[in-house]
Amino acid sequence: MKKIKKKINAAIIIIGNEILSGRTQDVNIGHLSKWLNGLGVKVEEVRVIPDSEDSIVSTVNEVRKKFKYVFTTGGIGPTHDDITSRSIARAFNLSYGYHKEAYKILEKYYTPSKFNEGRKKMAKMPNKASLIYNPSSGAPGFIVDNVYCLPGVPSILKAMVDGIKNGIVGGKKILSESISVSTVESEIAKSLEEVQNKFFQVEIGSYPFFRSGKVGVSIVIRSTELKQIKDCTKEIQNFIKQKKIKILEIK
Amino acid sequence: MKKIKKKINAAIIIIGNEILSGRTQDVNIGHLSKWLNGLGVKVEEVRVIPDSEDSIVSTVNEVRKKFKYVFTTGGIGPTHDDITSRSIARAFNLSYGYHKEAYKILEKYYTPSKFNEGRKKMAKMPNKASLIYNPSSGAPGFIVDNVYCLPGVPSILKAMVDGIKNGIVGGKKILSESISVSTVESEIAKSLEEVQNKFFQVEIGSYPFFRSGKVGVSIVIRSTELKQIKDCTKEIQNFIKQKKIKILEIK
Repeated sequence: MKKIKKKINAAIIIIGNEILSGRTQDVNIGHLSKWLNGLGVKVEEVRVIPDSEDSIVSTVNEVRKKFKYVFTTGGIGPTHDDITSRSIARAFNLSYGYHKEAYKILEKYYTPSKFNEGRKKMAKMPNKASLIYNPSSGAPGFIVDNVYCLPGVPSILKAMVDGIKNGIVGGKKILSESISVSTVESEIAKSLEEVQNKFFQVEIGSYPFFRSGKVGVSIVIRSTELKQIKDCTKEIQNFIKQKKIKILEIK
Repeated sequence: MKKIKKKINAAIIIIGNEILSGRTQDVNIGHLSKWLNGLGVKVEEVRVIPDSEDSIVSTVNEVRKKFKYVFTTGGIGPTHDDITSRSIARAFNLSYGYHKEAYKILEKYYTPSKFNEGRKKMAKMPNKASLIYNPSSGAPGFIVDNVYCLPGVPSILKAMVDGIKNGIVGGKKILSESISVSTVESEIAKSLEEVQNKFFQVEIGSYPFFRSGKVGVSIVIRSTELKQIKDCTKEIQNFIKQKKIKILEIK
C-alpha cells in the first residue's frame, strides 16, 4: 500500500495586539516565509490574533491539525501580556511550569540579583516542551509537537530560527523567477492566463508596481521544478516580445 | 427586552500568494487597522490566505459570521490570479457577472480601443454588490453584506477607503497613550501586572525596543475611555518614578 505523503506546509500565527492595532508593522511573516521557502516548506496561511488565551488556544488547536508545521511569534516575554506559553500548555492539555533546562539557562544568563520574577517567568513552559536556543538574549523559545514558539522581536527571532533548521524536514525547495516588464496588467492578462493554463504545475503571479514614476508589472513564476520554470519563462518572454513590451529586469 | 449590542469589530483577510511567500511586505494591515481604530472599530483578527478559490470561500464564510465588518485586500485586478470577486460571489451564493455601474465607470475611464478583456473583467462582480469608488485608477472595489473588497496595491487602497467611512458604523474611538522608558521589561513586569489587574477595562501592552543602540520599553495603554487612560498612565508614571527609571517619551 502506498503511503499518502503529507503536504509539506506551514502556518504562521502572529500573536500581538500591537500588530492588530497597527502600532507595529510586522516583519516576521516575510522573514519566516523566506526562511521556510529555502527549506522547502510552503507557508499556506497566516493568522494575526490578539493577546487572548482563548484566541491562542482555539487558533493553535485548529491550525496545528491542518498544517505540518506551525510557527507562533510573540508573547513569550516577561510581562503580563505575554501569555503564549501558558496558552500553548492549555491547547495541548499539558501542565505549565518551570522548564528545568530553560531555568538553568536563564539562571546562568543573569546574575543572581537580576534573576527576578519576570525573568523566571520566561522559564515557564508547557511540560515536555523542547527548547529553541536563543543566541541573542538568553530566553529560549520552545517546541511542542509541530508547534514552534518564537519571540516577537524580529532581531531575536532571526537569531533563533537558524538553530532549528535541522529539525525541519522540508520538501523540494521552492524556486522562483521574476520578470519585470514595462506595461500594465490588463495588456498581458489574456496571454498570461493562457500560459498559466498550459503550465498548471507552476504558480504564476502578476503584480503591478509603481516605482519612481514608472508603472510596470512583475510576473513571478514559482515551482519546485527548475525546468518547468525555465519553459514557462520562455513562453512568457515570447509573448512579451511579440507585444513589443520592454523587459525591465529578470531575476 | 434589551437588544444585545453586537461587538463593533473587524477582521482583515489579505489575499495573496506574494505575501505568503515573503516576496511582498504587507502594509495594508497597518493602514486599515489605524483607519478603523479612528472610526471606533477594533480589528480582532487578520488572515493571510493564498489565491485559491476554496480558501477565499471558506475563510470569508467563517469570518463574516464572527465579525461585524470584514475587509479583504487583493485579487480584484485583471489577471488570472485575481479571483476575489468570483470567490466572494460563490461564498454568498450569488451569480457573478458584469456589474452595470462598474462597467460604465470603466468604459468611461478607458478609450474604446483600450477597454480590453482584462479591463472588462474588473467590472465582473457578485450580483447585488455595491461599489467602492476608486479615485485613483478607475476600477472599483465592492461591498457584499458586511464584506468590503479592496485592492492589494497600498496606494490605491488608501485612496479608496476614505470614500467608505460614512458607511461604517463605529463605536467609541479607541484612544491610546504610549510611555517609552529606559529599562528592560522584566524590571517593570510585576508593577505593570498590578496596574493591569486594577484597570481591567484598559489594555496595557509592553513592547521592548532597541533603537540606535539603546534598549527600552514602550508601554501602550488603550481604551475607549480617556479618563481610564489618564488614571492608568498616572499609576504607571508613579511606579516608574519610584523605580528611578528614566521616561524617554510620552505621546
